[in-house]
Amino acid sequence: MSANSAVTRTVDVDGTPFAYREIGLTEGVPLVFLHHFTAVLDDWDPAVVDGLAERHRVVLVDLRGVGSSGGTTPDSVEAMATDLAGFLRALGFGEVDLLGVSMGGMIAQVLAQQEPGLVRRMILAGTSPAGDAGPANALALLQNALQQAAAEGKHPKHVLFFSPTARSQEAADAFLARLNERTEDRDAEVTNETIGAQATALAKWEQSSPEGLTTVRQPVLVVNGDNDVMTPTISSFNLAKYLPNAQLSIYPDAGHGALFQHHALFVEQALEFLSA
Amino acid sequence: MSANSAVTRTVDVDGTPFAYREIGLTEGVPLVFLHHFTAVLDDWDPAVVDGLAERHRVVLVDLRGVGSSGGTTPDSVEAMATDLAGFLRALGFGEVDLLGVSMGGMIAQVLAQQEPGLVRRMILAGTSPAGDAGPANALALLQNALQQAAAEGKHPKHVLFFSPTARSQEAADAFLARLNERTEDRDAEVTNETIGAQATALAKWEQSSPEGLTTVRQPVLVVNGDNDVMTPTISSFNLAKYLPNAQLSIYPDAGHGALFQHHALFVEQALEFLSA
Repeated sequence: MSANSAVTRTVDVDGTPFAYREIGLTEGVPLVFLHHFTAVLDDWDPAVVDGLAERHRVVLVDLRGVGSSGGTTPDSVEAMATDLAGFLRALGFGEVDLLGVSMGGMIAQVLAQQEPGLVRRMILAGTSPAGDAGPANALALLQNALQQAAAEGKHPKHVLFFSPTARSQEAADAFLARLNERTEDRDAEVTNETIGAQATALAKWEQSSPEGLTTVRQPVLVVNGDNDVMTPTISSFNLAKYLPNAQLSIYPDAGHGALFQHHALFVEQALEFLSA
Repeated sequence: MSANSAVTRTVDVDGTPFAYREIGLTEGVPLVFLHHFTAVLDDWDPAVVDGLAERHRVVLVDLRGVGSSGGTTPDSVEAMATDLAGFLRALGFGEVDLLGVSMGGMIAQVLAQQEPGLVRRMILAGTSPAGDAGPANALALLQNALQQAAAEGKHPKHVLFFSPTARSQEAADAFLARLNERTEDRDAEVTNETIGAQATALAKWEQSSPEGLTTVRQPVLVVNGDNDVMTPTISSFNLAKYLPNAQLSIYPDAGHGALFQHHALFVEQALEFLSA
């Protein structure tokens, strides 16, 4: 089962259906992908999903109110982490690895503090520790990117996820083409209500404290591009610094979506990290 | 030929004998190791040398006035880079990869600007761009470390190259044991005169400008530990930021000698980087 053919299923989490897909191995510690602001199941790069699924049981999920999942998206990262814990229990997962991108990386950070026993290892890509400036601008950046993209005939991800160089923009084209490979059973898009709740959660994140990170003992791989306009690259440096056992990788000429641009390098480093 | 058995040879560089050792492949683009402040040929970790030599022609060198080389160590990084260019030409190398640690990483940065055609790729470990604070303290840090090490029955590298945690200090013990594996044909230690000239060069480095780094087009892998007291970790972040095509790796719970502590991970990332 590959990223583009995996069936979308739902599981009941305290009365709400959560949509998810499973790809790759059918046993071993699951590797759960946690989505970014505005993203649904179809926003995951098949190159990354299938690359990691070669050696892992990969699970993609829409949290509450996102994509095809039911319920209303909560407006705090903490509540999203509680939803994630409920989802993991509903699938019977006692221990997981997490790949969190942007807002998903924040959810992972909180889960590791709320329920350390559930988390074996984490990969945190294009994200920031609580208290760092950046995430509160997400909605404004999105609106600007929508305008710029419309004016230039581009996708907003050209602006938000990649650096402005020709090489990075070409990588954006290739990434967007991969996202369009799946033709059947595509996920629903996020609603404006969900975008609003997520933006509020991101704004609150800037007002929160990163203190608890120093208690996270799990091995963490922190990844970003050297030119991230959404969660500034320095925040990945700060995140790795707070965490007692974090390895940091910053990729050249890349933005918020560095793991998608440099997918071959990322998959290789992630596989190595998860197996070490 | 392994790190511990490689014969020490000399080559004449404009009338001065430069000591060097060759390990690994006998063809391909040479990978030249550039030593740190106070280091000689025997300060290279055999785990790193032999790991990289499995796929590369590795060349270790004592620059002018260092170890068994003749001449007087110059007191600027620029002059050291000129010496390096002379050494490469003396061996007939038209293009090389460079692994520069600390001061060696500074020499590599300058060579890539002075003679871009000579440099294919660079790995810069535990080093800093010109203008960043840190290197000017090297001599004072060394003197403090000598005192602390004597008081605690340790080697100064326990203090200068590793973080204070139990895990990192154990890695220091293992590293120092590896450095002692070679019993025959050991190199001469650096003289106080050389240490003084190198310290002057490091102090001048802080007063220099990093501007030229933006013109370095070669792929660069920047590596450090998350707790470097000699060239603060943030300088590796800054270095990667100046360079247009740099990948950054920061290793957990490690100091200036992160590449020696995490030698398996470093060798793997370095091999991947050099072959990409």
